Amino acid sequence: MISDPLSRTFAALADPTRRAILARLALGETSVTELADPFDMSLPAVSKHLKVLEHAGLITRGRTAQWRPCRLDAAPLKQATDWLAEYRQFWEDGFDRLDEHLRELREAATTQEQTDDRA
Amino acid sequence: MISDPLSRTFAALADPTRRAILARLALGETSVTELADPFDMSLPAVSKHLKVLEHAGLITRGRTAQWRPCRLDAAPLKQATDWLAEYRQFWEDGFDRLDEHLRELREAATTQEQTDDRA
Repeated sequence: MISDPLSRTFAALADPTRRAILARLALGETSVTELADPFDMSLPAVSKHLKVLEHAGLITRGRTAQWRPCRLDAAPLKQATDWLAEYRQFWEDGFDRLDEHLRELREAATTQEQTDDRA
Repeated sequence: MISDPLSRTFAALADPTRRAILARLALGETSVTELADPFDMSLPAVSKHLKVLEHAGLITRGRTAQWRPCRLDAAPLKQATDWLAEYRQFWEDGFDRLDEHLRELREAATTQEQTDDRA
């Protein structure tokens, strides 16, 4: 069992079906039956995914209504984004370096063309 | 084995040791031995974590130098951030609602103070 909240969030997101469930819940709360519908999956299989999402705090389930609606809770997604934001400079630097490399390639190609024209 | 890149990234991030390894590599490339040092972990245990990170494309390892330096590759972190950004409105709405709730509480407190002053 994963003990820290951030690891639970990332582990919950590490599955395309669970991400699709969150995408569906972004449109509004719904029942487990309705959630299961587009996935060609048994209710127990969907319930298992919901338990992982619930354990990570990514969804809450109604206690009063008999159909126990599932609802998105985005707070853990904010924690995950905050953690990732610390690394933003690295991909931005990475793209800067790529830009520079492409510029150098273009310049080299232009110089080559000019040399060819002169020949 | 996880087949989609985004799931591989999230799965790789779902471990505090692997996140600590990335934090160390954010300071610059280093050897496996140096990486293992602060973790009180065997080299094979660290190597296992590095394989998960490498499989997710989060680190690259030098091929030429004998010490095979590990280097952070932040591109998959950008993909993860892009996915999470789709949900930004949900936590911002959540905090807006919290702000509103706090404002209402403050207003109620002020009204109560004014009533008390008049009494």
